[in-house]
Amino acid sequence: MSDFNLNGFSCPLPKLDYRTVQLAHGSGGKLSAELIEKVFLPCFGNDTLNKLEDQAVFAWDGGRIAFTTDSFVVSPIFFPGGNIGELAINGTVNDLAMSGARPLYLSVGFIIEEGLSIEQLHEIAQSMRRAADVAGVMIITGDTKVVNRGSCDQIFINTSGIGQVPTGLDLGLHRIQPGDAVLISGTMADHGMAVMTSRAGLSFQSQVRSDTAALNHLVSDMLASGGQLKAMRDPTRGGVATTLNEWAKSAKVGIKLEEQNLPVNAGTRGACEILGIDPLYVANEGKLLAVVETADAEKILAAMQKNALGREARQIGFITDQHKGMVTLKNIYGVERVIDLPVGEQLPRIC
Amino acid sequence: MSDFNLNGFSCPLPKLDYRTVQLAHGSGGKLSAELIEKVFLPCFGNDTLNKLEDQAVFAWDGGRIAFTTDSFVVSPIFFPGGNIGELAINGTVNDLAMSGARPLYLSVGFIIEEGLSIEQLHEIAQSMRRAADVAGVMIITGDTKVVNRGSCDQIFINTSGIGQVPTGLDLGLHRIQPGDAVLISGTMADHGMAVMTSRAGLSFQSQVRSDTAALNHLVSDMLASGGQLKAMRDPTRGGVATTLNEWAKSAKVGIKLEEQNLPVNAGTRGACEILGIDPLYVANEGKLLAVVETADAEKILAAMQKNALGREARQIGFITDQHKGMVTLKNIYGVERVIDLPVGEQLPRIC
Repeated sequence: MSDFNLNGFSCPLPKLDYRTVQLAHGSGGKLSAELIEKVFLPCFGNDTLNKLEDQAVFAWDGGRIAFTTDSFVVSPIFFPGGNIGELAINGTVNDLAMSGARPLYLSVGFIIEEGLSIEQLHEIAQSMRRAADVAGVMIITGDTKVVNRGSCDQIFINTSGIGQVPTGLDLGLHRIQPGDAVLISGTMADHGMAVMTSRAGLSFQSQVRSDTAALNHLVSDMLASGGQLKAMRDPTRGGVATTLNEWAKSAKVGIKLEEQNLPVNAGTRGACEILGIDPLYVANEGKLLAVVETADAEKILAAMQKNALGREARQIGFITDQHKGMVTLKNIYGVERVIDLPVGEQLPRIC
Repeated sequence: MSDFNLNGFSCPLPKLDYRTVQLAHGSGGKLSAELIEKVFLPCFGNDTLNKLEDQAVFAWDGGRIAFTTDSFVVSPIFFPGGNIGELAINGTVNDLAMSGARPLYLSVGFIIEEGLSIEQLHEIAQSMRRAADVAGVMIITGDTKVVNRGSCDQIFINTSGIGQVPTGLDLGLHRIQPGDAVLISGTMADHGMAVMTSRAGLSFQSQVRSDTAALNHLVSDMLASGGQLKAMRDPTRGGVATTLNEWAKSAKVGIKLEEQNLPVNAGTRGACEILGIDPLYVANEGKLLAVVETADAEKILAAMQKNALGREARQIGFITDQHKGMVTLKNIYGVERVIDLPVGEQLPRIC
C-alpha cells in the first residue's frame, strides 16, 4: 500500500495457501508454522526469534534473561478447573520455566469488551493474584483497553514475563540425541477437554477439569535432582503430538512413543472417546515434556513424583535416529503409526 | 463464585459506580483510574505496580531494567500517517524511553480475527519491522492467536518491552518541584485527530496525520544535553490534559499552562474545531511532556529542537505550589480556567 523501498526494510508479499487468515493459522499446527515462517520470520527475523522457542533468552550483564509473551482468548472464560486469568499467569510462568529460568516479573494487558461484569473481572483479577502468589511471581506493570460491544469476546488477556536463567544451565533442541528418554509430568488433554466439554455443555464435564498450574517449582525439583535435563516444553495448543513433532523436525531425530505409557485421566479419556478426539492433540496447561539423559531418567522421575504436579510423571518414549523428523506411536498390538502435526485446529480458542 | 478463603488471597468485591465495564473504563480518565484503584491495585498491588508509571523499573544485578506492556486496539487499523503495527512498536518503545531507559527488546502478541487478509497482516508486520529498526530495538519473542469471525475486530496487538535504565539516572514524580518548567516536544492531538477524521471519513483528513514515532533517540539527546530532566511521559490516551492532571495529583503540585504556547498543527486545529474537540484531551503517539529544572530549560529545548521529532519543542507551562493537584490554563485574554481529568472518552479505540 505504501512504497516500502522508500522506508528501508521491505520483503515481498509471501505466497500462502490462503489469502486470508484462517482459524487454523492460530492452532499451533501446520498452518501456524506456515504463517510464522512465511510472514513473521522474514519480517521480524533475528537469531533469537528464529529459534522459535516459547521464550527468548538473551545475555544481560554476564547473566541471562528469559522473556516471553502469550495472549489468552479462551472461551468460555470460566471453565471447570480455572478461568482465563489464572491460565494467563500460569501459561507465561510455564513458558519461562521451560527454559529453566526462574520466573520473576509479569506484565498484564487486558482487552475488555464493554459490558463485562465488574464481578467477573474482579474474580479473574483475584485468581490471577492467587496464581502469581503460588508461582512466586509479581505483576509489576499493566495496561487496560476497553472495546465496544461486539469488538472482542468478553475479555482477552496478554501476559508477558521475565525470568532469570541459572548460570551454566544449557537446555535446548541442540542437546537432544538418539537414546535420550522422553518424559511427561502427568496426564494428557485435561485442559482442552475441560474447555471443550464445558463449551458443549456435556453432562460428564464435571469429571474433566483443566490442569492449569504453574510448573516452575516442579522444574526446580527436576534441576535439583542432579540428572541431565536436555530440553523441556509445555505441550499447550496442539498437545503432546505437536510439541514432539516440532522437536523431531527441529532436532532432526525420530521420537518413538508407546501408547500404553501415555497417561490419560478416566474422565478425560471418556470425553475424548465420545467426541472422537485424540488426546495426543489436545491442549495441556499444567504439564511438561522433557528430554533427559536416559541414565538419569529414574532419578529425575523420582524427583518429579515427589511434587504434586508430577505425581504421575513417567517415561513415554525415547529419541531415535530412525525416521528422522517423525514421531511414531506403537499401540498395544505392536502396530506402529506416524503421529503427524495437525493441519488445522480441533477447536479454536482453547487457551 | 468460588470460596476464595480456601485458596489464599482474597479481597471483597469493590463498589464501583457501574456494575459492568464501560468504554470510559479504558479511556485513561476518571473511570480508568477508578477501575485500577478499586479492582486491579487491591488484587495485584505491590510497591512497583503501585507507582502507576507507564513502565516498571526493577533492580537487576546491580543495574536497573524497565519493563512495560501495551495492547493496541485502534480502529481503523490503517490511518493517515501509520497503522496499528508501527503504533504498537512506537508506543512500547516510548513507554520505556519515558523512564530514561534505552529500549532493547520487544515481544509481540497478535490476536487476529479469522478473515483478515494476509496482505494486510504482511503490511502491518513489515511496518513493525521498520519501526523497530528506526528505534533500534529487536522483536525477540511472539505469539499469535486467531479467533473466530466476530470475536475481535480485525487485529489487536500487544507489545511488551525491556530496556536498560542508565546508571545514576533518577526520573520520576518525586523530583517535580514548584518552579520547574513543563516542556512539550511538538504539536498536540495529531494522532487522535488522524484516527477520528479517518473514521468519520471527513474531507480534510489528508491534512491530519498521526504523529506516531519512537521518541527514544530524542530522549537520548535530551539526556546528553546535560540539563536536569526530572520527569517525562508521553501523553497518549486522554492527551496532554490527562498526563498533566496525573502529575499534578500524584506530585501534589499545581501546573499552570498558557494557551498561546500550546502548539497545534493547522490541519489538526481545523479538525478539532469542526468536531468540537479540545486538543488538550486528544491522544498523541509521538510527543513527550517533560518537567525540567527551569534554569536548564533553554539548554534542553535547544537539544530537542535539533532532533526532527523535537523541532517544535517549547515550554508550555510551569509547576507551582498554588492550587495543588490541579492544572489551569490561562487564555490569551488572561482568563484562567481549570483543565480537569476527562470523565469518559471522546472516542474509544484511539490506540
